[in-house]
Amino acid sequence: MPQPALTIASLLRDPALAQACAQWLRGGRYRLEPIDPDHDPVAVLDQRREDFDAVLLEQGVLDGAITRSLAELGLQLPAVVIGQVTGRIAYHEAEVHLPVDQLEQLSYSLDAAISRFLRRGLQPGNGLGGGAAGETPERWKLANRLKGRLGYLGVYYKRDPARFLRNLPKGEREELLRSLTRTYRDLLLSYFRDPAAANQALESFVNTAFFSDLPITNTVEIHMNLIDGFWKQLRLEGHKNDFLQDYRLALLDVMAHLCEMYRRSIPPDQPLAESTVQQDDPASTMPPAA
Amino acid sequence: MPQPALTIASLLRDPALAQACAQWLRGGRYRLEPIDPDHDPVAVLDQRREDFDAVLLEQGVLDGAITRSLAELGLQLPAVVIGQVTGRIAYHEAEVHLPVDQLEQLSYSLDAAISRFLRRGLQPGNGLGGGAAGETPERWKLANRLKGRLGYLGVYYKRDPARFLRNLPKGEREELLRSLTRTYRDLLLSYFRDPAAANQALESFVNTAFFSDLPITNTVEIHMNLIDGFWKQLRLEGHKNDFLQDYRLALLDVMAHLCEMYRRSIPPDQPLAESTVQQDDPASTMPPAA
Repeated sequence: MPQPALTIASLLRDPALAQACAQWLRGGRYRLEPIDPDHDPVAVLDQRREDFDAVLLEQGVLDGAITRSLAELGLQLPAVVIGQVTGRIAYHEAEVHLPVDQLEQLSYSLDAAISRFLRRGLQPGNGLGGGAAGETPERWKLANRLKGRLGYLGVYYKRDPARFLRNLPKGEREELLRSLTRTYRDLLLSYFRDPAAANQALESFVNTAFFSDLPITNTVEIHMNLIDGFWKQLRLEGHKNDFLQDYRLALLDVMAHLCEMYRRSIPPDQPLAESTVQQDDPASTMPPAA
Repeated sequence: MPQPALTIASLLRDPALAQACAQWLRGGRYRLEPIDPDHDPVAVLDQRREDFDAVLLEQGVLDGAITRSLAELGLQLPAVVIGQVTGRIAYHEAEVHLPVDQLEQLSYSLDAAISRFLRRGLQPGNGLGGGAAGETPERWKLANRLKGRLGYLGVYYKRDPARFLRNLPKGEREELLRSLTRTYRDLLLSYFRDPAAANQALESFVNTAFFSDLPITNTVEIHMNLIDGFWKQLRLEGHKNDFLQDYRLALLDVMAHLCEMYRRSIPPDQPLAESTVQQDDPASTMPPAA
């Protein structure tokens, strides 16, 4: 049974994009509910605020007045913004960005958006919740509903092993790796030129790497293959290419973010003194991760 | 109550070293049992094989004949080898190395040694167990005893929050950071010159970083401070220093190892469909990790 289903308010203007998103979210876990961004989306979201768990947003469909209204009404939901990564915030600070040519990662991005929303929502002064309104009861209600629906333990996100890279069918596995390579390429191309855009690409990569349980060696491989490609191209064109080693900083950055994400995802350990053999712990009967 | 206590066979020839090790393992969790390395240690370890959980070894006290005898008798216990990191194996492949000037990390190294021993022991063809003897019942008995005593869940090691960096008294925290800096310095100094030695220093650093829950930013800081120091020294001495950026590879290496260690330490996730709110999970009532 595809439980728990998440209901996503989909504010997409481009029908081809809407179709592509529906395709990548098929399978029953996510239910997309289209909302016309041109017919008072604030009122629709307000009336149906109990229905939605997250928002899928096409970049540019919400203007500043709309996002301010949403903030004032406490209508800030976990969000994935589809469009070029520019470093600009479209909706709120906990949103996650994904370019159109990387939609293969959409389900991971949604998980990441919910995870970020819950983490940030639990910190004071997080920029969510619309300034003066502060810790709105609305946001707490949503956070509690999401936790109940998704089986959060504290603020720790439970990943879905069915979507781990190694558990995907071969075709999907290759598709996901190609998509991750495009994300990493965006990161490299903007790394020194546009730090805000690079940061969104970095977060997108790290989110998918985490939620797909990507082995660390794959990240290093993606980096090496891209740098290798750049190196050959520059040599063919007769350009200097020794600056390419500066891009190790990008890999370091990715690794540091990913490592910290893993570090914070380990459940708080019980002191050793309290932990003798726990025959009744359900985890002990599960197969170890590869 | 300082439970569970681990009994460590201590094969140290230098009395000052033995005293220093005892000092760093005070507190009741580890009980050191001195064994004279010059009076048939094989026979003593064999007679008392049920007593020991791990071995503390001074580099050079066991010759090749002794280690071969130990392997043949299935007497390969989790081990920390104290001495200069040279890349050479003193006892068996799962041993952990720690130089004398970094004994502050001894308790973390012992945890790492046990963790490595259990992980490797569960893999076929791991080089433990003495060739033809293969999967000796002895090793399985020891592995089971260690698991029972330490509260392992599957192959996942439970860290001791009391020894997390942030939970140490200020003086000990600074001591540990200085010790980690010395380990990292060893890593940098041998990184291009002696990969096998560098690898032992790297493993030592990563082990302590993991078991002390060192924030990733601290690792980056330790790297930057050391490189900064090298840079200033080389400039003062009128040497070139642009090669220093090659040492980013060392940081990348550390990060990749650490990240993979964290990744493999996350308990296998339950599929989302099975995980609704788990009111009875002890983890949900624990404070979140910083």
